[in-house]
Amino acid sequence: MEAAGAPESSEEPPVRDRLAGMQKGNSVCSRSYFVVVMVFVHVYILNVIALLLYVYYSNGGQNDADTAGGPTAATTAAPEHRAHHRQEDTGGPHSYLPRLEGIKVGYKQKIELVNNKMHDMKTLSLKPLLFEIPNFLSEKECKFLIHLAQLKGLQASQILPVDGYKEAMENLEISKADIFNLLDHNQDGQLQIKEVLTHSRLGNGRWMTPENIREMYAAVKADPDGNGVLSLEEFKKLNLRDFHRYLGNREVTMNDLVRNSQHTWLYQGEGAHQVLRSIRQRVIKLTRLPAEVVENSEPLQVVRYDSGGHYHAHMDSGPVFPETACAHTKLTTNESSAFETSCRYVTVLFYLNNVTGGGETTFPIADNRTYEEMSLIQNDIDLRDTRKHCDKGNLRIKPRQGTAVFWYNYLSNGKGWVGDLDEFALHGGCLVTEGTKWIANNWINVDPNKARQLWFLQEMARYAKDDHESQKEWTVDKSYKDIHVDL
Amino acid sequence: MEAAGAPESSEEPPVRDRLAGMQKGNSVCSRSYFVVVMVFVHVYILNVIALLLYVYYSNGGQNDADTAGGPTAATTAAPEHRAHHRQEDTGGPHSYLPRLEGIKVGYKQKIELVNNKMHDMKTLSLKPLLFEIPNFLSEKECKFLIHLAQLKGLQASQILPVDGYKEAMENLEISKADIFNLLDHNQDGQLQIKEVLTHSRLGNGRWMTPENIREMYAAVKADPDGNGVLSLEEFKKLNLRDFHRYLGNREVTMNDLVRNSQHTWLYQGEGAHQVLRSIRQRVIKLTRLPAEVVENSEPLQVVRYDSGGHYHAHMDSGPVFPETACAHTKLTTNESSAFETSCRYVTVLFYLNNVTGGGETTFPIADNRTYEEMSLIQNDIDLRDTRKHCDKGNLRIKPRQGTAVFWYNYLSNGKGWVGDLDEFALHGGCLVTEGTKWIANNWINVDPNKARQLWFLQEMARYAKDDHESQKEWTVDKSYKDIHVDL
Repeated sequence: MEAAGAPESSEEPPVRDRLAGMQKGNSVCSRSYFVVVMVFVHVYILNVIALLLYVYYSNGGQNDADTAGGPTAATTAAPEHRAHHRQEDTGGPHSYLPRLEGIKVGYKQKIELVNNKMHDMKTLSLKPLLFEIPNFLSEKECKFLIHLAQLKGLQASQILPVDGYKEAMENLEISKADIFNLLDHNQDGQLQIKEVLTHSRLGNGRWMTPENIREMYAAVKADPDGNGVLSLEEFKKLNLRDFHRYLGNREVTMNDLVRNSQHTWLYQGEGAHQVLRSIRQRVIKLTRLPAEVVENSEPLQVVRYDSGGHYHAHMDSGPVFPETACAHTKLTTNESSAFETSCRYVTVLFYLNNVTGGGETTFPIADNRTYEEMSLIQNDIDLRDTRKHCDKGNLRIKPRQGTAVFWYNYLSNGKGWVGDLDEFALHGGCLVTEGTKWIANNWINVDPNKARQLWFLQEMARYAKDDHESQKEWTVDKSYKDIHVDL
Repeated sequence: MEAAGAPESSEEPPVRDRLAGMQKGNSVCSRSYFVVVMVFVHVYILNVIALLLYVYYSNGGQNDADTAGGPTAATTAAPEHRAHHRQEDTGGPHSYLPRLEGIKVGYKQKIELVNNKMHDMKTLSLKPLLFEIPNFLSEKECKFLIHLAQLKGLQASQILPVDGYKEAMENLEISKADIFNLLDHNQDGQLQIKEVLTHSRLGNGRWMTPENIREMYAAVKADPDGNGVLSLEEFKKLNLRDFHRYLGNREVTMNDLVRNSQHTWLYQGEGAHQVLRSIRQRVIKLTRLPAEVVENSEPLQVVRYDSGGHYHAHMDSGPVFPETACAHTKLTTNESSAFETSCRYVTVLFYLNNVTGGGETTFPIADNRTYEEMSLIQNDIDLRDTRKHCDKGNLRIKPRQGTAVFWYNYLSNGKGWVGDLDEFALHGGCLVTEGTKWIANNWINVDPNKARQLWFLQEMARYAKDDHESQKEWTVDKSYKDIHVDL
């Protein structure tokens, strides 16, 4: 076989002669040069082909490799890697949202948030996927944030209910039987107290407790047999105006509300103070979410709970149905919907001080085997009540200055994007029994509708490129301008 | 600055002249050829550099990109992707073990196990990560496996205890106070029945129930006050020989054992029947684990439970400590250890028939919030007992012909490899009350010590390349040759 290639080279003069011949005459010159050029051309082509093949294979190009036939390692091990790359690469870098691994409760991992400094991160629960990172902020940074918030001024997170609701209720065109049916969760023809409690909107911002309900029943003589249960007959006999009159006349204090705290918002975008910028960068590193997703999220919320303050257990974001709009992407899509929620994929909560008494963050049903609203809210004990029942929840986090906790309010959709609301993410702020509690919240907004989120990011990038005047009209921070005065 | 390079080219003749000159005389010839060669050399070098850069960047080489400085999307979004690639790529394709996402209990996803056919996969629990895939096997395949197993012949999975144990126990040089201390789990100075039950080895293959313990106490008069609790004083007064005599004289049937079933092993490697090969290929696609990991795992175990058969709740694999050896990698590492386990990362269980009565697979503590051995084993109810308490477990899977269920016996270590044992993976086979139950098990063996697993795979690949004679000595299947007769 070698004979086919050999004759040519055997006709050539020995190497030394050829090299010498290159300087010699015309015919030798052209032949030598031809050989040199040809060698270069071939080496060049071979190298390009080899590199192209390398690029092809290292980028997962063997999509059609048949894995069913042979048991060899190299070909059959690859498909999953390729699938993974493909999944991540579809539609650019921000179309895949990485999710941290919790492994198991108590699992500790090291993370690098700033160069050359390692932080510990501990898994606190898997449902929701919840982590704790001590010393995320320095004492100085915590104090700076409190100071900045105080300079800016805080406002009540919730105000006392107004009368509008009463009139609205009175004008409601809905029969008593229908109201009864809506409230009768288990459809047993009886209204248990816990069924009334689950409809927290009935309180119109007031937090309703089993005692409240019993007092109200007594005041309007709703439950003559006093068994705490309303039958349809008892309900029909009621005069709803009596209810409203009772609610209207009852004195309401801040402690009776769902939330008793004050808060303000701190801008973190370009041009913000270095501490605020740096926190945002650390949040990007912590969550591993695309930077532009984090950069286009809500500003930092700083919250103060005075002694006696609380926030009953709640979800930071709502369930998502096809017709639900997200507050942040609504800016660019111009869609309006009866259902709107804040689409907060991730909550990062920072403790800015050590609280003298109380003020823990509670996750009453974290890691429960199943989610049952009705086991959460009993006739006598409502686990969502953070003024009374924080001690009965599954998980409580004690505030420690500088510590960050973060969790996912939504599950994955199994395709690298936001899926269903994680009901186990229910959480609240326990009663502050002594001293003041300062925290800050960073919410990372992602629209579960991927196309809308990508469009939103694209538009935001486009406006950021335009001049600063037009940009100002469009940043998410600016949508908070009614509650936000630049410092 | 351009002037420095320009003069030379301005001295050159116009392009047409030069091209014409190439065919002309001696001096022109050598100069033209020189130009051509130089152009090729430069183009070649530039192309190689460009391709190398492309390879570098597309493989995630920008490790040192500074993400802390700017808010732009393109640079800051990328690190996680790069990290992901890096993680997967370290040490070749089999050094990263993908893990499926469970999302939440009840979550359904479509998977393609054979070309152009989709299967449904449902998440049954997150702790352990457990999935169910109906119609994984066809009815024909199920019947084939049963037929093959019958042809080959099955043997008892566990045999009745022998006397050796009795003598071994009698020769044990350990004081009664030390035995008491070992058994006294909560160190309260009293032996509760559940504390005796947790030490299942005391039974030497016999399954011990609270009733057994009470009968035994009564027979040897161990518990004069009859409160079911032994104090150290009561324990010291005992004659251990009485215990052994009692245990030795008691009639033991198969139903008293931990496991009452028969099984055999079916070879699935190269040259095996197409049905067995095809099942292995589907398992590779299902688990997305590297093919060579699956190919070098245990053969298929086919198990028959007759009416009255059971398998009390157990773990398919043991905990792993640094000194623990894996049965499969021991073949190549030649390490021996007092601790050895089968290192079954994944269990794939196939139901081969519909069982007339009973025979469910139970996961008594699946998705429990916490794992507490002592809440699993009570003084009166031992949730591991699949003859009596299957109805009280968290999760029960009814056998349906062709359905596969699979779960991870180990957690992830957070770095794409096998981590700690998942204690929630405890499972058993409920009592078959009527008819026969046929199942098959595929275990995927992975050494939690990554270096040992990679060495094992490398050695297996090397031996597979050698001639068939030497290969036969080394396949894992062959390590089962004492219990395996080729069909």
